[in-house]
Amino acid sequence: MSNIERNAVAVLGCGTVGGGTAKILVEDCEFLRQRTNVPVRLKYIVDVNFTHARALGLPEELYEKDLDKVLADPEVGVVVELIGGTTLARTFICKALKAGKNVVTANKALLAHYGAELFALARENGVVIGFEASCGGGIPIIRALYDGLIANRNEAIYGIVNGTCNYILTQMTHDGKSYAEALAEAQTQGLAEANPTLDVSGLDSAHKLAIMSSLAFGKYVELSAIPVIGIDTLELMDVSAGQDLGYTIKLMAMARKYDDGKISTMVCPVFIDKNHPLAWVSGSFNAVSVYGHAVGHTMYYGRGAGSSPTASAVTSDIMSILTGAFQKYFNTLPIWADRIEKADMLEPSKAEEKFYIRINVIDKPGVLANVTAIFAKHDISIASMVQKNNGKDDNSIPIVIITHLAKEGDVADALQELNLLPELNGNSVCIRIMEEYKENI
Amino acid sequence: MSNIERNAVAVLGCGTVGGGTAKILVEDCEFLRQRTNVPVRLKYIVDVNFTHARALGLPEELYEKDLDKVLADPEVGVVVELIGGTTLARTFICKALKAGKNVVTANKALLAHYGAELFALARENGVVIGFEASCGGGIPIIRALYDGLIANRNEAIYGIVNGTCNYILTQMTHDGKSYAEALAEAQTQGLAEANPTLDVSGLDSAHKLAIMSSLAFGKYVELSAIPVIGIDTLELMDVSAGQDLGYTIKLMAMARKYDDGKISTMVCPVFIDKNHPLAWVSGSFNAVSVYGHAVGHTMYYGRGAGSSPTASAVTSDIMSILTGAFQKYFNTLPIWADRIEKADMLEPSKAEEKFYIRINVIDKPGVLANVTAIFAKHDISIASMVQKNNGKDDNSIPIVIITHLAKEGDVADALQELNLLPELNGNSVCIRIMEEYKENI
Repeated sequence: MSNIERNAVAVLGCGTVGGGTAKILVEDCEFLRQRTNVPVRLKYIVDVNFTHARALGLPEELYEKDLDKVLADPEVGVVVELIGGTTLARTFICKALKAGKNVVTANKALLAHYGAELFALARENGVVIGFEASCGGGIPIIRALYDGLIANRNEAIYGIVNGTCNYILTQMTHDGKSYAEALAEAQTQGLAEANPTLDVSGLDSAHKLAIMSSLAFGKYVELSAIPVIGIDTLELMDVSAGQDLGYTIKLMAMARKYDDGKISTMVCPVFIDKNHPLAWVSGSFNAVSVYGHAVGHTMYYGRGAGSSPTASAVTSDIMSILTGAFQKYFNTLPIWADRIEKADMLEPSKAEEKFYIRINVIDKPGVLANVTAIFAKHDISIASMVQKNNGKDDNSIPIVIITHLAKEGDVADALQELNLLPELNGNSVCIRIMEEYKENI
Repeated sequence: MSNIERNAVAVLGCGTVGGGTAKILVEDCEFLRQRTNVPVRLKYIVDVNFTHARALGLPEELYEKDLDKVLADPEVGVVVELIGGTTLARTFICKALKAGKNVVTANKALLAHYGAELFALARENGVVIGFEASCGGGIPIIRALYDGLIANRNEAIYGIVNGTCNYILTQMTHDGKSYAEALAEAQTQGLAEANPTLDVSGLDSAHKLAIMSSLAFGKYVELSAIPVIGIDTLELMDVSAGQDLGYTIKLMAMARKYDDGKISTMVCPVFIDKNHPLAWVSGSFNAVSVYGHAVGHTMYYGRGAGSSPTASAVTSDIMSILTGAFQKYFNTLPIWADRIEKADMLEPSKAEEKFYIRINVIDKPGVLANVTAIFAKHDISIASMVQKNNGKDDNSIPIVIITHLAKEGDVADALQELNLLPELNGNSVCIRIMEEYKENI
């Protein structure tokens, strides 16, 4: 690819991130040229509707509805997909790659589902796909994994990678709001979609974890292999009880590689010590901790979403492609199953954590004996058991149990049995307690 | 440069970082080849003494005392300078560049003093100088500035970039140790040199700030333009008084670019709010916050020193050079005065901060009137004034004064006048209070 002839960029989808990217390319075109020697220029904004583009004052002469015309333009070197979703976006990216265009995308759902297919198609056509903006918004975490940390056999990755969830959990923690109140507040602030399912279910975080953990470990971690628990059933009472114990609640995307090579992954709400390096990450910010065998713990923090932060990441990919730097990494990126082995996943039931378990018991003699007998039967060692006040006058008493390290499967079995006890009022609540990963350097 | 023929690496100086780098290149040679497709190999360990190399079990056949032989070897593509200092290291790097070898260095002192000359020499000879390990140890902060954040006109950079100082300050803060005790502890732990001057004086942080701020702002910030105050005169009493006020003490390397284009820089101990995003960075860890116009606040955290963390950064440069990626950035790096304008520096006396000032007054009528009159005369507005107990029986009372925003020059003038007051017992103490920079996104 000659940079001189193919420095024009087409942005597909002029929404929040597309608009932000177009603005940077228009306003900072000369600044970017000075920094890279590449005369980058935005040539097309492709959409079906230009209301948002007009509202941003983006030049009318860039508006284009005909994608085929854009793909036929030999000056276009990079097509930026910011449509979202996994249908149209997939079709358009495939067309662009087949037309010999490099692609930049922020679409984690698309990559988590179809990354292997798209990367293979890119390689067939001698082009690349930049995806910095797919994980952690403006945080340059993908680059850290493929470039800055290249010397590392990574051991663990822990990320707060969904700003909507982190905002909601911060509201619950700091302001004592219920989940419903905090979600409503997030929606008012424009930080949650009208339909927030993809975020609060944890699925968006799982998309990002599939991408980051494959890249970090050099083993293909399939999306479907990641157990996912969302934040949508969290009760304020447990958030508060955790705080009393010195914990902060976070939705964590976690992946670990054990000494025997097995990998375990999970997305779920966790309690972390309030002094844990990720505990202070609040509001809509994101952060990702990576543990490498040489570098030890490094952490990357920043805005995980939003127009200009995500556009910053998109633009870094555009420039890295136009200078030709990213091409030096793309072909050997250890990310999808076509180039690397599938991860040897630890059976999820065998993963070990500490657990916070809350049950509501009806105050009768012998009930605690029954409860503790079930834990003992399933080989779960109890670290502490505390009676809480639920403020209600219903003869049901919340008991908070903290376990020592226990297997996911054993805890699941114990909970199932517990929930059948006649002395239990409602189902038990279970939240994992994540300890800080210990560096091995 | 053809990668196939020039993939051999020579490490100059087999000390802590050199030994760590050699170990990675020997042990992970195949891993690195898989990740990059470049058959990198360590061919020479150049030193005058191989005791450390032997202790690490590095292969004898790599030991070489004759640098000229190494530079004459056409297979050597990268020479890694890990000797340190600014004399021999400078001579050897110049020789290597003239011999057409790419160079990787962790030497911040050398770059801060001779970076312009060395980069120009590299460009004349068609080679590059990688310097990721010069700032922040294993943290990929240099890459973030030249690649991940490339779309940003950066506004501010705040870094805890000296692990020795941060370890000492953490000991003073958490364990109530005096400066001398904490320094002795750092020396015992191998975290401070026998002669710790370069670290505790703040000069090492200034070297790093000169490099990072030039790169961040695209304006050449000269080392000599950075005001520097070390931690070696800090008293435990002030660290504690700050804690009582909700502050944590950190040695901060700070650079800001104002709306009018002027840049101010400083390295000094500062009080930051205990909830500030850099307050929890403790022990020998480093962290750098960067504020970009598009991305807002991003922060990078990790080990700022040590054998394998620094070797991780060195190795990322080696691989980026051998794949050819770094070459795409090197020629346009906005860092030294030969390519970019000199920074238009704000006159240091005009920089504004809040200040913590402690004076010991002899308890006499009218003394506070005299003190406050001096502040008023110099246009310094006082936010609070608190009498502390110094636990001594000497009729001298410590008074802690917190100012509103005030100019460095005004405060310096006021302190000079204060120190002449006969009611003062000993000189005043002055520590800057750094507020969290507000994003403009």
